[in-house]
Amino acid sequence: MMSNITIAVDMMGGDYAPSAVVDGVAEALQRFGDDYHLLLVGDEAQVKEGLAAVGVAVDDPRIELVHAPEVIGMNEHPVRAIREKRQSSIVTCMELVKSGRAEGVFSAGNTGAAVGASFLKWRMLEGLARPGIATILPGEKSPWVLMDSGATVDCTPTVLAQFAIMGDLYAKKVLAIANPRSGLLANGTEEGKGHRRVQEAFNLIKNIKDINFIGNIEGHDLFCGNVDVVVCDGFVGNIVLKTSEQLGKSLTGMIKESVMKKMLWKVGGLLSKGAFAEVKKRMDASEVGGAPLLGVKGCCIIGHGNFRGHGVANGIRAVGELIREQLNEHIVEAVHQCAFESIG
Amino acid sequence: MMSNITIAVDMMGGDYAPSAVVDGVAEALQRFGDDYHLLLVGDEAQVKEGLAAVGVAVDDPRIELVHAPEVIGMNEHPVRAIREKRQSSIVTCMELVKSGRAEGVFSAGNTGAAVGASFLKWRMLEGLARPGIATILPGEKSPWVLMDSGATVDCTPTVLAQFAIMGDLYAKKVLAIANPRSGLLANGTEEGKGHRRVQEAFNLIKNIKDINFIGNIEGHDLFCGNVDVVVCDGFVGNIVLKTSEQLGKSLTGMIKESVMKKMLWKVGGLLSKGAFAEVKKRMDASEVGGAPLLGVKGCCIIGHGNFRGHGVANGIRAVGELIREQLNEHIVEAVHQCAFESIG
Repeated sequence: MMSNITIAVDMMGGDYAPSAVVDGVAEALQRFGDDYHLLLVGDEAQVKEGLAAVGVAVDDPRIELVHAPEVIGMNEHPVRAIREKRQSSIVTCMELVKSGRAEGVFSAGNTGAAVGASFLKWRMLEGLARPGIATILPGEKSPWVLMDSGATVDCTPTVLAQFAIMGDLYAKKVLAIANPRSGLLANGTEEGKGHRRVQEAFNLIKNIKDINFIGNIEGHDLFCGNVDVVVCDGFVGNIVLKTSEQLGKSLTGMIKESVMKKMLWKVGGLLSKGAFAEVKKRMDASEVGGAPLLGVKGCCIIGHGNFRGHGVANGIRAVGELIREQLNEHIVEAVHQCAFESIG
Repeated sequence: MMSNITIAVDMMGGDYAPSAVVDGVAEALQRFGDDYHLLLVGDEAQVKEGLAAVGVAVDDPRIELVHAPEVIGMNEHPVRAIREKRQSSIVTCMELVKSGRAEGVFSAGNTGAAVGASFLKWRMLEGLARPGIATILPGEKSPWVLMDSGATVDCTPTVLAQFAIMGDLYAKKVLAIANPRSGLLANGTEEGKGHRRVQEAFNLIKNIKDINFIGNIEGHDLFCGNVDVVVCDGFVGNIVLKTSEQLGKSLTGMIKESVMKKMLWKVGGLLSKGAFAEVKKRMDASEVGGAPLLGVKGCCIIGHGNFRGHGVANGIRAVGELIREQLNEHIVEAVHQCAFESIG
């Protein structure tokens, strides 16, 4: 029997909060049954109203309401917001883990606020310098991990090497990839490519014996199955993530527009609609449930702001996996063994 | 009547050289007639053989063979290669412009070698710090310019601001966009996003009065028509360019694979084939003909390594446009007016 894990859910985070998050909680209760005890953190009146609308009883023993009167909006300045809104749902979620009432957090809210609040309340794991977000992206052959996709903009070589360690462990423990190939993202595959920080990170990572380091990789290696863990700073990773999201959307839009131009094409498009739905599902981030924020002293999955209920439910499951696999313990141990704090 | 412009063509550059370049020369002669005088630079025997195969007479007055016995391969280390192979086709091309025999260069060869050779033979334009490649990319609404897509990996704020000036002028003069919107690529749209160099570049660019600066942009703004000129360093630009190329390929591959799974989908795919061909053409870099290398004292268009004849012919036309529009003169003047050499 699985243990009953307590997860704090940020009810006010996301483009469609709280209703999408309420939907996700309802789906999670149905799919995962008693696996989780969920602390629903947010404006109590709104959450109660939402639960009533989807037919979940407020006194269901698997849920518990935690009132948080403030909300941090998707476009608020993160650092300022968490400083000013100490009673916001996301800060309260982190607080619940810190005080031991919850073991992990799910939020589809403002990413910067989640990163900032976790750092404020939890601090870094022992030996870890900076947090990173490990986003799972789809590919022709298999999914791959983009680490960091936006938590730390400026990275020293040591930070990049620690991202490599965390991404590798995440791929092994949570994605169950036996021998993940890790690559350092650069403007070409030859050794010596990239700026100084990338070059120095290359030398650090190639000496980590537990990592299957395939050296520098370039944009052409993504999405096609050449690499399992892509290491880069959060500036580059965020640009890669958002550019890819947008290009996927734009290409789909252009195909749709084109198909509508002639009757014959339109008929063809209708007949093959199922094939597109299949690809769309493969590309859909809500199937994954979100990205773990790694390096901090706690477990947090950050969902996509546009998640509906299904993405939220999968995100809650993802928090559970992170906790069960004891990823943080593995990270601390691996970083301790490398101990290049003195290098970078 | 158009003036007769002399262009040096690197016959040995590209994945399918020299045959693809020979095809391109033949197409250019047919399409552009007497507009250009082409210096065909490469191994004379191979070029002659190629011309014979496509039925172009060696004594056609519009072409002239220039023998260059050495070739720089697509995967050679650029700096080492141009130092060791002084008689390579690409170095010879640059030399022909320096000595006044040609006005511009087209090459689909090793990008790093073209950048290095131009810098070696031509040096920078007055007041310009570093070269940048302005790649035109397709979009839902209109094409846009990625500046720099790989020439300068490490950029000071001044270099980024000069990229903004060059990208803006290229969009105005060559792409004929009346009031191009320029954006600085970062990990979010708010002012203050990005690392220090991006933040400082922001302050420089917003003070350039001739640029319609829309501030920071993020990956979500690309491909969808939000911005005309995207300013970033060559490290980020190269990653964006190659990631986008690969994602386009991977998505197409996934759709094809999916369509083949069921007979009905297959029939639909066949019927709507024309719509896909249309999108593919819109995404095809060979329609554009390549990207100008800007900032150096000369005109050079760098084609995609995978170009066939059509791309090469369009590349030759693109060199002509660059020369006719006197882009370099406009760049020197605009940079002189800003004169922030002293700042960054």
